[in-house]
Amino acid sequence: MTQIISKSESLKEAGEAVLEVFFKPKSIAVIGATRDVKGLGGSVLKNIVDAGYPGPIYPINPKATEILGRKVYPTVLDVPEEVDLAVVTTPGRFVPQITEECGRKGCRGMIIISAGFREIGPEGRKLEKDIEEIGKRYGMRIIGPNVLGVVDTFAPHNATFAAVMPKQGRTAFMSQSGALMSAILDWSLGEGFGFSSMVSLGNKLDVNEVDLLKAWVDDPNTKVILGYLEGIADGQLFIETAKEVTRKKPVLIIKSGTTAAGSRAISSHTGTLAGSDQAYRAAFAQCGVIRATSVQELFDYAFAFANQPVPTGTGVAVVTNAGGPGIMASDAAERLGLKIATLTTETTEKLQAALPPQASAHNPVDVLGDALADRYATALEIVLQDPNVHSVVVLLTPQVMTDATDTARAVAEVAARYDKPVLGSFMGASEVKEGVAVLSANSVPNYPFPERAMEALGAMVRYRRWLDSPPLTFPQFQVNKTAVANLFNRFRQEGRLTLGEVEGRAVLEAYGIRIPKGDLARSAAEAVRIATEVGFPVVMKIASPDILHKSDIGGVMVGLKDAEEVERGFHAMMDKVRARMPEADIWGVNIAEMVPKGREVIIGMNRDPQFGPLLMFGLGGIYVEILKDVSFRVAPINERSARNMMSEIRSFKLLQGARGEPPADLKVAEEIILRVSQLVTDFPEILEMDINPLVLMPEGQGAIALDARLTLAERG
Amino acid sequence: MTQIISKSESLKEAGEAVLEVFFKPKSIAVIGATRDVKGLGGSVLKNIVDAGYPGPIYPINPKATEILGRKVYPTVLDVPEEVDLAVVTTPGRFVPQITEECGRKGCRGMIIISAGFREIGPEGRKLEKDIEEIGKRYGMRIIGPNVLGVVDTFAPHNATFAAVMPKQGRTAFMSQSGALMSAILDWSLGEGFGFSSMVSLGNKLDVNEVDLLKAWVDDPNTKVILGYLEGIADGQLFIETAKEVTRKKPVLIIKSGTTAAGSRAISSHTGTLAGSDQAYRAAFAQCGVIRATSVQELFDYAFAFANQPVPTGTGVAVVTNAGGPGIMASDAAERLGLKIATLTTETTEKLQAALPPQASAHNPVDVLGDALADRYATALEIVLQDPNVHSVVVLLTPQVMTDATDTARAVAEVAARYDKPVLGSFMGASEVKEGVAVLSANSVPNYPFPERAMEALGAMVRYRRWLDSPPLTFPQFQVNKTAVANLFNRFRQEGRLTLGEVEGRAVLEAYGIRIPKGDLARSAAEAVRIATEVGFPVVMKIASPDILHKSDIGGVMVGLKDAEEVERGFHAMMDKVRARMPEADIWGVNIAEMVPKGREVIIGMNRDPQFGPLLMFGLGGIYVEILKDVSFRVAPINERSARNMMSEIRSFKLLQGARGEPPADLKVAEEIILRVSQLVTDFPEILEMDINPLVLMPEGQGAIALDARLTLAERG
Repeated sequence: MTQIISKSESLKEAGEAVLEVFFKPKSIAVIGATRDVKGLGGSVLKNIVDAGYPGPIYPINPKATEILGRKVYPTVLDVPEEVDLAVVTTPGRFVPQITEECGRKGCRGMIIISAGFREIGPEGRKLEKDIEEIGKRYGMRIIGPNVLGVVDTFAPHNATFAAVMPKQGRTAFMSQSGALMSAILDWSLGEGFGFSSMVSLGNKLDVNEVDLLKAWVDDPNTKVILGYLEGIADGQLFIETAKEVTRKKPVLIIKSGTTAAGSRAISSHTGTLAGSDQAYRAAFAQCGVIRATSVQELFDYAFAFANQPVPTGTGVAVVTNAGGPGIMASDAAERLGLKIATLTTETTEKLQAALPPQASAHNPVDVLGDALADRYATALEIVLQDPNVHSVVVLLTPQVMTDATDTARAVAEVAARYDKPVLGSFMGASEVKEGVAVLSANSVPNYPFPERAMEALGAMVRYRRWLDSPPLTFPQFQVNKTAVANLFNRFRQEGRLTLGEVEGRAVLEAYGIRIPKGDLARSAAEAVRIATEVGFPVVMKIASPDILHKSDIGGVMVGLKDAEEVERGFHAMMDKVRARMPEADIWGVNIAEMVPKGREVIIGMNRDPQFGPLLMFGLGGIYVEILKDVSFRVAPINERSARNMMSEIRSFKLLQGARGEPPADLKVAEEIILRVSQLVTDFPEILEMDINPLVLMPEGQGAIALDARLTLAERG
Repeated sequence: MTQIISKSESLKEAGEAVLEVFFKPKSIAVIGATRDVKGLGGSVLKNIVDAGYPGPIYPINPKATEILGRKVYPTVLDVPEEVDLAVVTTPGRFVPQITEECGRKGCRGMIIISAGFREIGPEGRKLEKDIEEIGKRYGMRIIGPNVLGVVDTFAPHNATFAAVMPKQGRTAFMSQSGALMSAILDWSLGEGFGFSSMVSLGNKLDVNEVDLLKAWVDDPNTKVILGYLEGIADGQLFIETAKEVTRKKPVLIIKSGTTAAGSRAISSHTGTLAGSDQAYRAAFAQCGVIRATSVQELFDYAFAFANQPVPTGTGVAVVTNAGGPGIMASDAAERLGLKIATLTTETTEKLQAALPPQASAHNPVDVLGDALADRYATALEIVLQDPNVHSVVVLLTPQVMTDATDTARAVAEVAARYDKPVLGSFMGASEVKEGVAVLSANSVPNYPFPERAMEALGAMVRYRRWLDSPPLTFPQFQVNKTAVANLFNRFRQEGRLTLGEVEGRAVLEAYGIRIPKGDLARSAAEAVRIATEVGFPVVMKIASPDILHKSDIGGVMVGLKDAEEVERGFHAMMDKVRARMPEADIWGVNIAEMVPKGREVIIGMNRDPQFGPLLMFGLGGIYVEILKDVSFRVAPINERSARNMMSEIRSFKLLQGARGEPPADLKVAEEIILRVSQLVTDFPEILEMDINPLVLMPEGQGAIALDARLTLAERG
């Protein structure tokens, strides 16, 4: 953990400053620029020129002398002035040499648009490795290869081969798919949606999503960060970074594609239940990233975040000129966990005084079909003043008397005077077109249907909850880390990578997780002594590495009430087991306290290929196995996450003490989840782990882990 | 049930024929027509004229002589020719008299656009009642009041006060909100979406959603039926009608608004768990209605249904010119229960031969960023020939070489030659605009993002499943209906509306649901006789209306193994109970067979205000109470629905025999659900009912109802 935090801190300065070359380059060379502006190099050059880039532009091409009225140089080394950013469009095989030249020239950054790398197989992968190595040697940052390019509307520059330039706006967008970026770019022009920057990430040889989060968090031109990602390079670093970035700006991401389950065979419950999507869901929730499930949703949310303040609560008011859409909006609000605000008596009275008698002065506020701009403005202003109202959705259907344009002007004017979000849903097309344009021009996002406005508001409210939640700090318990390290070293030296009941319990004990008191007894006398220490009644189990099904051969006895029973039991068990399994290596008998009845839960961990230690919580038995009623988080986690893991499962009420049973000791359960979080963070060599069952006693009485299994990696 | 079926049959002829007057009127009078075409009556008249209505149009207004070049009559009675349809726009208070005049004139139908009825309170409700009564007297059908009106693009006529006329298309739309209809009308023009008819339902004084389903099912101009509904007049009739209509045409509905829970106190589990939305969900599922959760979704689905064939299976192929959107489409497909089809070796080989080496010949088929129309056409044709492919989504991102328009032409041409649905997602705006228009003009729906195309396909696949399912017939068991009728009559005469264990079990017995064998014993000798008949071991319970907690006072004994134990037990119990509750009226002791251990389930029913008997199924105990793991259907149901009710619950695996337990007797469980369905259908006076628990024995051993509770309505 120490390592992660320092990584993140050291890279903080590295963010905007290091990536500045891509967004605000001092000069740009286009390597592979051609006279044909339909070709790759030519179109990139033309885009940079057309975007109005104010700095020097150097076309590089050994076979040309002038392109678009600019002098062409054979190589970047021939440029007499400084070259800050190199944009490369030549075939892949030339790129290592070009990288070398750029390095020698002192470029700070390269955008490698060229394709023909890892996507074509091993030889492409080799090329990438060479480029990476050269880049590192010269301290150059590299975007790509295999990208559409980079746009910055404030520089301005457009180092892409896209056919169009985006409108200026306050949203930054990164895309792992260049084609999707070009489609979105084109679509955004139709919607009047603007961007501050757009970056195509491509093969992510160097610059990745984490670098961009860091670059954009302090970018004054960016209010919202959007991303389309197919994978994340370093899950833990992503969480670490995103949780700081999201405190300052909303980050909205579509995560597409499911990663392979991994080649290692899965043996734990947690491993079976944890799909990689579970890891993404948990990780995003933990670091405040808002996940969109479609491009439509991503931009619906972005419209709201980029233009309106984040509401301070869940109360929403609806102002509408028709009942039906008002009901639809209310339905959606309820479905999304928003609250149709109960208006104060004062508000209702003001509305009654201001609106015609047929109007509804309750929420949804129906200003009636013949409402003109003034009536909308009055109603909007009154509800915005209500303390129960944290946001407003204004609905308009084009009716006979309706003047959508005038109404839009009035709505925008009122909305601008309040620090509460106002979203519009002016429905229709030609009849509301001008009105929608007026809203957009005045930073009031409009949605063609009320449900989409509510969904955007729902995302904003989720973000507010994140902002209001205390920052994450991870509790550190006093544990015996050395003991576990020594244990693991010994087991791995012995080639024992799967730790069962006995070894697993030793690990728990070292991390302060209570296990049944007891010890191994080699003689009847020892058994009696241990049992007396532990306290009666006790449980006795034969201890042998060779006996799997202990109870089948009389190797388990429960409820032994006194010294006499223990002594007799010891001899009886030894005789029986020796008779039935004369070959078995018998260590003795484990004497343990008899654990009282309680609620059985399971706490598990599985190492996700992208995010690392994925914790799982659920009730034992059918709840995990049949109902799959479990929750996940990526370790390390804090108290709040531990509590949420418990309260998220459907059967949580059983732990709270339903049906006459006492509530379970959730305080201790929370602590154990946190101790497991610390354990699996301390030891990356733990691949999988299940504490199953952990018996939760009634409140105040703690919890005891009855069994634990761990799988270790061969090398730590 | 007999009654329901005959209702539906008798109304079949009544559908199109009776409502024909609204869609294909022989002549139209506009009552309240004004010279001012901005006013209500004036705009309706102008819309009818402008739409090109070919029949005679009669403006009615006592204060005018000529409007829009047409002679005006003071009343409808003054028109010398026949008047078929009257459209009324005068203030509400005049409408009863006008209705009387229309009746006398022999009009077949009226559209009452006027407002000022139930929505303004009791006086408005009174007006509606008067109009309804007059309409009935003359056999006139009435749409409204309080509506936007009716459009038929094939008549053509436009008897609305909407500002625009829809484009002609194959989709019929009914809306309980006039304002929403006007918004959708306007929006549809922007989207190029056409309608066959549009009807605003308003207060539904006469014509309602069921009438329109019947009218449109046989309308040759309508391929898809859409609706926005806030409530349904007669739930059972709706289900009965819709299940026939959906066999012929898809019906897509947004149900908005939640109805009040009803004033009656709820005492059953079923009543507590059954929200009105559960009833809608169950009802729509049972009658094949596809529910949309937003207007966006409604029209996304409608685009597909109106233009493309319904796929015959779940296998979908994706053809794309970029990887990212292909992944997004695959993700969406998986989430929606579609299958990214595994292409046959033959298909893959054909694709490999036809496409460049870098292309992906597996699904999603990536034709690469430089694909032109011919490559798209080739790939599309090859995948359409694959037997594993039941539908295709064609994705296009505008890249440097892309020609969206040409590609659209090629895609449409190939798609038209195959009887499999092809949907497009040409992403972007200006770059694909023309291509999207070409697709639309050629009946290939296009969606701005791939997820929305997949969602539409998902709805089509759900509809295919419905079409493939056998038609619903309700099994009728031989039961003793008379016995139950007599029981209910007696109880109600006695004012006993809540039936407990004893009476409830008698009802079950009459409907062939097994209850524990046994009887009431008034003496020890009788107890022994009954126990011997029942078979040992038996359970004994004190029978007394005054003793609630029987076991607390020694009134319950289990596992009595022989005659001697029963005799002794009888005396012991009587003595003990008499001693402890000397005042209690003791009927004797109930002797019953001892029911073996099994899976406890609950079968319940609650009467929904709109749909009537709502059946519930779930596992007993925590599964119902804590996890709320239950399923619903509206009775009467068929075998398939009964089976689905069981398999829908999350804990279904427990019934199938998880964790070493034998599977429960699901065959018998299914039969009991059906018998309960028959019971609650036969007796509308049953308001609520719970069989809890019903003990399911292992497969082949049946099921026994241990307890049942019913609540009866005061009058049947």
